[in-house]
Amino acid sequence: MKKEALRFEIKKVDPRTNARLGVLHLPHGDIETPVFMPVGTQATVKAMTPDELKNEVKAKIILGNTYHLFLRPGHELIKEAGGLHQFMNWDGNILTDSGGFQVFSLGALRKITEEGVEFRSHIDGTKKFISPEKSMEIQNALGSDIMMAFDECAPYGASYAYVKNSMERTTRWAKRCKEYHQAVEKQALFGIVQGGFYKDLREKSANDLTKLDFPGYAIGGISVGEPKEEFIDILRYTAPLLPQEKPRYLMGVGSPDYLIESAIAGIDMCDCVLPTRMARNGTALTHYGRLNLLNAKHIHAFETLDQDCDCYTCKNYTKAYIHHLFKAKEILGARLLSIHNLRFLVHLMEDIRTAIQEERLLEFREEFYEKYGYKK
Amino acid sequence: MKKEALRFEIKKVDPRTNARLGVLHLPHGDIETPVFMPVGTQATVKAMTPDELKNEVKAKIILGNTYHLFLRPGHELIKEAGGLHQFMNWDGNILTDSGGFQVFSLGALRKITEEGVEFRSHIDGTKKFISPEKSMEIQNALGSDIMMAFDECAPYGASYAYVKNSMERTTRWAKRCKEYHQAVEKQALFGIVQGGFYKDLREKSANDLTKLDFPGYAIGGISVGEPKEEFIDILRYTAPLLPQEKPRYLMGVGSPDYLIESAIAGIDMCDCVLPTRMARNGTALTHYGRLNLLNAKHIHAFETLDQDCDCYTCKNYTKAYIHHLFKAKEILGARLLSIHNLRFLVHLMEDIRTAIQEERLLEFREEFYEKYGYKK
Repeated sequence: MKKEALRFEIKKVDPRTNARLGVLHLPHGDIETPVFMPVGTQATVKAMTPDELKNEVKAKIILGNTYHLFLRPGHELIKEAGGLHQFMNWDGNILTDSGGFQVFSLGALRKITEEGVEFRSHIDGTKKFISPEKSMEIQNALGSDIMMAFDECAPYGASYAYVKNSMERTTRWAKRCKEYHQAVEKQALFGIVQGGFYKDLREKSANDLTKLDFPGYAIGGISVGEPKEEFIDILRYTAPLLPQEKPRYLMGVGSPDYLIESAIAGIDMCDCVLPTRMARNGTALTHYGRLNLLNAKHIHAFETLDQDCDCYTCKNYTKAYIHHLFKAKEILGARLLSIHNLRFLVHLMEDIRTAIQEERLLEFREEFYEKYGYKK
Repeated sequence: MKKEALRFEIKKVDPRTNARLGVLHLPHGDIETPVFMPVGTQATVKAMTPDELKNEVKAKIILGNTYHLFLRPGHELIKEAGGLHQFMNWDGNILTDSGGFQVFSLGALRKITEEGVEFRSHIDGTKKFISPEKSMEIQNALGSDIMMAFDECAPYGASYAYVKNSMERTTRWAKRCKEYHQAVEKQALFGIVQGGFYKDLREKSANDLTKLDFPGYAIGGISVGEPKEEFIDILRYTAPLLPQEKPRYLMGVGSPDYLIESAIAGIDMCDCVLPTRMARNGTALTHYGRLNLLNAKHIHAFETLDQDCDCYTCKNYTKAYIHHLFKAKEILGARLLSIHNLRFLVHLMEDIRTAIQEERLLEFREEFYEKYGYKK
């Protein structure tokens, strides 16, 4: 049996919640969990250099998007470049998604069959096709440390029949992915649990995928527009269905409260475009709530964004200056807020890990929510 | 008599040309000349952090634009922030222009009188007024290390009568600037020689301004669209008209050949938006000529931009990757080329200084032109 690319070590389990402290041992370094992973859709975390991600944000793993990289510049070109790490100059770990979520988001532009999904490129309208095998071929070419099985993410509000059908196909596709993917000592392939907001379907999905014995499991189809109560309910139900000893990855979650709730539910990994997208729109995440830097109240605010933040932006710049940069449409504005927002979330995960270690995660949540001004 | 903010030391004069090696002693550090100064129009060198300017580009002085900063965020706000250095987190030197060039570039939107210039803001259309005294007030508030007297830059092709009138007013305005500006121990005020492409007017302008005894002199109204021969001719005529012992600043010049010709003519300082503007448009300056990174020939170019460059971009990224970033409209593309283009010009000035030191500036020009593919 081949040595697996990933080894997951659980250091501590919270006696009062499902949270756990762990270490992901991966080809490009060890990662303490729970962890937040910045998203680098097109072979770049928007507005950031890899050096800033490493030294300022202190990120150790980032995401790449299979759908985008398949279309542009193409996985074969990236393979020719020596893989995604080398192409983009990132020597930390990379997780690639399966392309499923983006393809299904195309709506009327795609057609699903048992074989795979035919769709039209959002760039030039040409016809493309991704099957489970193609998704593996692309991700093998990219050379990510963690790959995702090709799945269908059913839309929020889809009927039981639709979600059941889609979830069962996702399991069949997961099997095909596992059969195709051979480089298990270099790249760890995760299965993705689907089943929407139907608990029996989540249970069936988790059970069937567990039998396939993936080195880790993702939860898809949550945080897709549902109310927060429903998010927490399905998350708390689904996470414990997955093998205790394997890492659990909740896809597409990045707001501070969702990250805290995820850790409590026993999630080890999260990712989201939220911090960088918000940054480009002029919004900062802070310990005292969100700030819209375009707001005129910041014109004379000669103070830092967040007194509790240790990032480059907070060490060197005032709200007044960042306000000016956004009013003047200067690139540096997006840069400074991207650094801050990413560091804020990575910092939050560090605080969550400390709280788990000290067995005070629930108290940490209360304190964080109060400072931030969240309603529980 | 007050101690002046600027002291200029000439270390060596080239025996075969008018080039000289010098050091500008300024409040925010010493600067070896000839020097290229990156432009930070709106309190930021576009797409760059001050740290990158210092550590990657190795710039020691940058420009700020009085017109832009007056309109947004306003010089009073910057004064309140502690001055432009503190507002933008730059601890090197800053030179501010007078606002003249930008105001006159507004064309039909401005009206010139002896008192000053009335114009409409390009941002919101409101009426504004800049006089020589107002330009000083703004630049005093910004707290730049070197300030420019308020001048009129006549357009290329303007009649003798127009240029004469405008040049004489520029001299009268220079006198008013000198009278208004009191903080000479903190900020050095330069006069600006005008006179278009009429040599007798250049001579009169230089003579009259020299009598006013500024600590340095700029040459304006060159590199405004004229053919290269005309540029070199008027430059070589005008530079020696200025006091030998004072620094000479040629405004708005930044292409590699113009920088070399300027040094040969005895110019000590140059600035231009060219390297950063080109960078944002996908063009790299290299020792082997200009490269348009959007060109499809770079798709598979897994090599660095310029093998002779020592910048962060050239140490870490391929043309193929930068091509991808521009095709995908990623901010990092503009960032990487901005670092490279600025470093390229700062590096060129280092090479020019070495060539002056070694008394081989003319040979350096030949070698550079041949490699670059310039016609002489």
